[in-house]
Order: sequence, then structure tokens, then C-alpha cells
Amino acid sequence: MSERLITESDIDEIALGAAVLGTGGGGDPHVGSLIAKRLIRLHGPVRLIDVDDLEDRDFVVPIGGIGAPSVSVERIQAESELLAALEAIEGAVRRVPTAIMPIEVGGGNSMLPIAAAALAGLPVVDGDAMGRAFPEAQMVTFHLAGYGPGATVLVDHHGNEVVSRPVDGAWSERLARAATVEMGGAATMIDYAYGGEVVRECAIPATLTQAQRIGRILLGRDASGAELRDDEKIDALCAELDAVRLFDGKVADLQREVVGGFTRGAAELDGVGEDRGSAFRLDFQNEMLLARRDGELAAVTPDLIAVLDLATGLPITTEALRYGARVTVIAMPCHEKWRTEAGLATAGPGHFGYDVDWIPVEQLARQRRERKEAA
Amino acid sequence: MSERLITESDIDEIALGAAVLGTGGGGDPHVGSLIAKRLIRLHGPVRLIDVDDLEDRDFVVPIGGIGAPSVSVERIQAESELLAALEAIEGAVRRVPTAIMPIEVGGGNSMLPIAAAALAGLPVVDGDAMGRAFPEAQMVTFHLAGYGPGATVLVDHHGNEVVSRPVDGAWSERLARAATVEMGGAATMIDYAYGGEVVRECAIPATLTQAQRIGRILLGRDASGAELRDDEKIDALCAELDAVRLFDGKVADLQREVVGGFTRGAAELDGVGEDRGSAFRLDFQNEMLLARRDGELAAVTPDLIAVLDLATGLPITTEALRYGARVTVIAMPCHEKWRTEAGLATAGPGHFGYDVDWIPVEQLARQRRERKEAA
Repeated sequence: MSERLITESDIDEIALGAAVLGTGGGGDPHVGSLIAKRLIRLHGPVRLIDVDDLEDRDFVVPIGGIGAPSVSVERIQAESELLAALEAIEGAVRRVPTAIMPIEVGGGNSMLPIAAAALAGLPVVDGDAMGRAFPEAQMVTFHLAGYGPGATVLVDHHGNEVVSRPVDGAWSERLARAATVEMGGAATMIDYAYGGEVVRECAIPATLTQAQRIGRILLGRDASGAELRDDEKIDALCAELDAVRLFDGKVADLQREVVGGFTRGAAELDGVGEDRGSAFRLDFQNEMLLARRDGELAAVTPDLIAVLDLATGLPITTEALRYGARVTVIAMPCHEKWRTEAGLATAGPGHFGYDVDWIPVEQLARQRRERKEAA
Repeated sequence: MSERLITESDIDEIALGAAVLGTGGGGDPHVGSLIAKRLIRLHGPVRLIDVDDLEDRDFVVPIGGIGAPSVSVERIQAESELLAALEAIEGAVRRVPTAIMPIEVGGGNSMLPIAAAALAGLPVVDGDAMGRAFPEAQMVTFHLAGYGPGATVLVDHHGNEVVSRPVDGAWSERLARAATVEMGGAATMIDYAYGGEVVRECAIPATLTQAQRIGRILLGRDASGAELRDDEKIDALCAELDAVRLFDGKVADLQREVVGGFTRGAAELDGVGEDRGSAFRLDFQNEMLLARRDGELAAVTPDLIAVLDLATGLPITTEALRYGARVTVIAMPCHEKWRTEAGLATAGPGHFGYDVDWIPVEQLARQRRERKEAA
């Protein structure tokens, strides 16, 4: 393997791409990128290692933010929280971290592991445990493979530290969410810290480099390095991601609140361009989870639903969504690990209380295409 | 010092007396006494040691229940929780407990330390950190002396374990209460685990033996061993405790709910006997906190307010209080540590949102006596 380094100039690309894969959640990419750039500037570039290059003796620590994105854009994580969290996990399990990993390839949560890796002088793993972002702590591939959360660390900006050993992933989420709400709605978290052999088995590989490819497109370069105009970006992105362009519209109504440690709500879109006359609805809990076009299912969790600025293609988080914004909604298949019985039970529509069956986004798109052709 | 042992036959006396000092809270004495008796039966008597006999090298672990009494009478603590909590504190601070201590001399919370001591083969300290029971975790003499909660352990009957290191006592309470609510409203807790030198400085001494003296009276023996009739017990108790008999009445109205991890509410009493024609109101949050006679302050936290069965003198917890019950309300001075600026700020009426100034219960009683004599 040739050594790959994440330098300051890689950060914007990764952050932007991760915000697409973050499907509206995963923390604010801009805030996260500022922390990552600052710490790379201070401590030097971060080595990026492949999931397959992890050795059994490695101890891989996923680190990220937990809470409502609406809070975390206001209450920015301190560097001291990252170090405190790393020290807490080392103290709790008496094993020295040898690599950092994103628990999810969400916007901010792709950045905090890079920031922590820079700070601690450790490599970061090119992979994550979701292949996207999800709102709840047990929605990770470790859980699907039967691994528990292990020692779960929470630290906040007050200096509080909580280390729990929950009996399973659902309890980890409950206890961490309750503590996070007390801590003011956002905290730094470590869970599912495992040895290299477990991470090789469970992690979804190469998601940071995938994020970087997406980010490059959004910043105006295609895979060959050719320049892209703004109006070419979304289609180039869909080609790269095997994504479906679901809807172009304007935000006509928006309900959003911070409740139970989540940002929850829904957005209603009025169609523009080819979609004029149609209505679209997005339901979210930190992440975009359910998309319906004129009342009909267009895409649903665990498949990915991302909202992009119609003019620039840049991703918009659920927190940054504004009334009147002109957006494009795209959707793409989730990793196959989520398309299993365990995956759908953990992060499918039923878990969130949506009364719809999961249908693969590509099948929904094909059905719609066929109906249009028949009409 | 001669060796003192707590045997099965001491338990009922201590539990009953601690329920008086528990002022309605501190956990159910009967449920706690069953656990303590069972573990003494299995593992042998528990050595009782004086606060002053603690050595610097001792590591004293306060253990008890946290949550709403209404929950803990239904969801009885498992022995496994006590051991798990002791193992968790040892793991977290890497110091082996050498003695157990009640954090409060409340009903059930005077029993769990004895049960844990029997289980672990350790002595129990004759003292506690409140000299009564209080509803919140930071209401301890350690806090008044400027000591933080240290590593704070919570375990539940699901097998979850949470170890927090809160920045101060108020954060300890917030984080522990939030976790307890998730755990179902009751959990086993260790906090303020300190070396012998700190416990000698902070603990209120001899409260378990005080509880036993009270219990003996309520079970029908005065200090000299002479038999007491039921109708003599309450006056004997008041003499022993320097307590004031505030009111005899019948519960005419009762509001009580489990909210935020506490049992909160109020009871209205209609006077009987000499108090016929007067009304009395008790406000509680796990513990009895405020007593008013015909709208006038009769006693208020941090002074102790206890509700006893009018016929038998037996203490009644806030959870066990029932509509129609005939009761006597007594009140007595709290330990002088609570009558300081720090004590009143921590556990005085203002902290609980009661718009009254603290006036010593003995002064309120004198004022009332003088008014009656003048009338």
C-alpha cells in the first residue's frame, strides 16, 4: 500500500461529499471541516489507512458527535473534548487506540475522526460503520454483525465524562441520548471501539475516499479532472453514486424542532421545472428518512436520500434547510448490509414508525419510469 | 473499641428508625430490610465501625438506591446490582473498597449498605452524608465541604452500567437522574467514594445507631428497656429526637405523581383531636420538605419532617401515604452542617422553589407556643 495522507486541502472535498452521504445529518460539514483543518495545520497531515490493512492488534476507536444537529452548529466541539474522549476510552478498556475511525460518514462526523487523529497522531481508517449517517447509535454494521457497543464514552464541553457499558446497542442509544439531552443536546461520543479483526469484518470500506470523489465533483471536477459547470454537477454526482434524481422543488413548508436529542421534522416541496405541478414531502430525524412524491413512496430508509442546492449541487443538511430554498432531492441504494433482515429491522421504515414497506430505491425509480412510459 | 455487629435481629429496628430520619424518602424500609436480612442470613453479621475509627488508607463506598420511591417498592433491587456497582467503582478508580457507608440514613438506603457489606464481607460505617434523607444526589455533607462526587456509578437490573465523572455535584445529580429515568425510574448508585480522612471530616456520625434507638422505641421499648404502650411511643420518640409534634390529622387530599425520576406531590390533612378545625399541608419530593399549618410555616427543609401513623407511631413514606390515613406529623432540627449558608443554599426551601425563608423548626415551635399562651 502506498501511503496516503489527508492534508488540509483534502478536507473540503471530503466534508462536502460526506454531507451528501450524510443525507442531511451527521453533523454540520462546515463546522467539522474548520476543526479538522485547524488540527491538521497544527499537528500535520493524517495518514489514511485501508480497512483491510488493519491488523488484529490494532485498536480502532470510532469518534463522533451525538445530538441534534441544530445544537451542534451552535455549540462547537472543543478540541479538549476529543482528547478527553480518547483518554476516557483508553482508561475504561485499558487498551491504547492505534487508529481512529468515523462511526458514520456524515458531514461533521467524517471530520471529527480526522481532527482527533491529527490531535492524537494516529491514522484514520478509510471506512465507517454505516456507509451513510443514521440518527441512532445502534444503527451500525457492528450491531448487525452481533457486536455490542462495548464501553461507550460521552464527554461534553462542561468537562463531564460518562462511560457506560450498556447491555446492547438499543440501551447504548437510550442512555447516551438521555445524557446528551442533559449535556445540552450535543456531546462527543465513542462507541463500538474494537480490535482490527472486528473492524475488518464489519466496516464499510473506502467511504472517506468515496466522499472525496463526491466532493470533487461538487467542487467542479469530474473523475478525469475535467471542469464541470454548476448545472452539470448533479447529473455527474448521480452517475458517480448510481443515484436517482427524484425531484426538483422549492421548500413550501417546513416543520422542524429539537426534541429528545434529535432534530425532527418534515419539509414540503412544490415542484419546479419538469416537476412543476407535483408535490414532494421529506420526513427527517436528523437524517432524511422518507421521501414521497404526490403521496407515493419515492425512497425510504435505509436507502439514502440527499437534498442538494438546485443551482450549485451543494448538499443541504436538515438543519440548514430553509423555507423558499430551491433544491434537488436525489436518492441512492444503501450498502447491502442494510438490505438484510437485520439491517431493515434496525434502520428500516418500521423502526421509525413509518407505515410503509421498504422498497429498493432503484425499484421505485424503475416503476415510476415504466408508469411514465406507459402514460 | 469493642466490636459491634449488625445481626438479623437489629435490622427491623434500624430500618424503622431510618424511615423516621428518612422523612418519607430514602426508599422503602421494609423492602430494604428484607434484602439486608437475607444477605446477613447468607453471609453472616456485618461489622459496624465508627466514623472516627476510619483510617486514611480506608476506601469508603457509599451505596444506595436512586429514583422514585414509587418505583423502587415495585422493582426490587437485585443482589447482583450491589456487587456489580462495587466492582464498577473498584474498576473505575482502581481502589479496593474497605468499608461501605449509607449515603443517607433513609429507610431503604440505610439497608442497602448493610446488605452490600454483608455480600462483600466488609464493615459498614455508623454514619451517613445527610443525617436524614434528601431527594438529590448533591445534597450531601461532602458537597458542603467542597468535595465533588468523583466517579459516580449507576447500575440497573437490565445489566447496564454507567460510570460518570461529573464536574460537580449538581451535574452528578442531573446525569444520574436522566440515566435513572431511562433505566425505569430506579437504579443502584455509588457516589462520593472517598478515603477515610475525607469521610472522617464529612460524615455525620452515629446515625445508624441513632436509627436503631428510634426503632427500638417504635417497637415498644424505651431507652431503659421498659415497655411502651402504642400511645406513648410518639411522645417518647419526640423526647429522644428533640422533635416537635406538629399536627395530628387525617389525610383529606393527596396528589402524587412520578415525574422526572422523583415522587412529587402534596398531602392535605384535616385536624383531629386537639388539632380539630385546623388544616395542614405537606409538600414532598421523595422526602417531606415543607409543612404548613393553616397556611403558616410549621417546618421546612433542611429540618426534618416525618409522618407517623397516629395509632402505632410507625413512619409512613411519601409513597405509602394513603387517603384517609390518620397520622401525626413531627419535625426536628437538621444537623448543624445544613444550617450554614452552604447547607441552606444546597437543600433549603429556595432550592426547591418554595417561596419561604428557612426558620429553625424549634423557633417556629416557640413562636407558636407563645402565640397560644398569649391567646
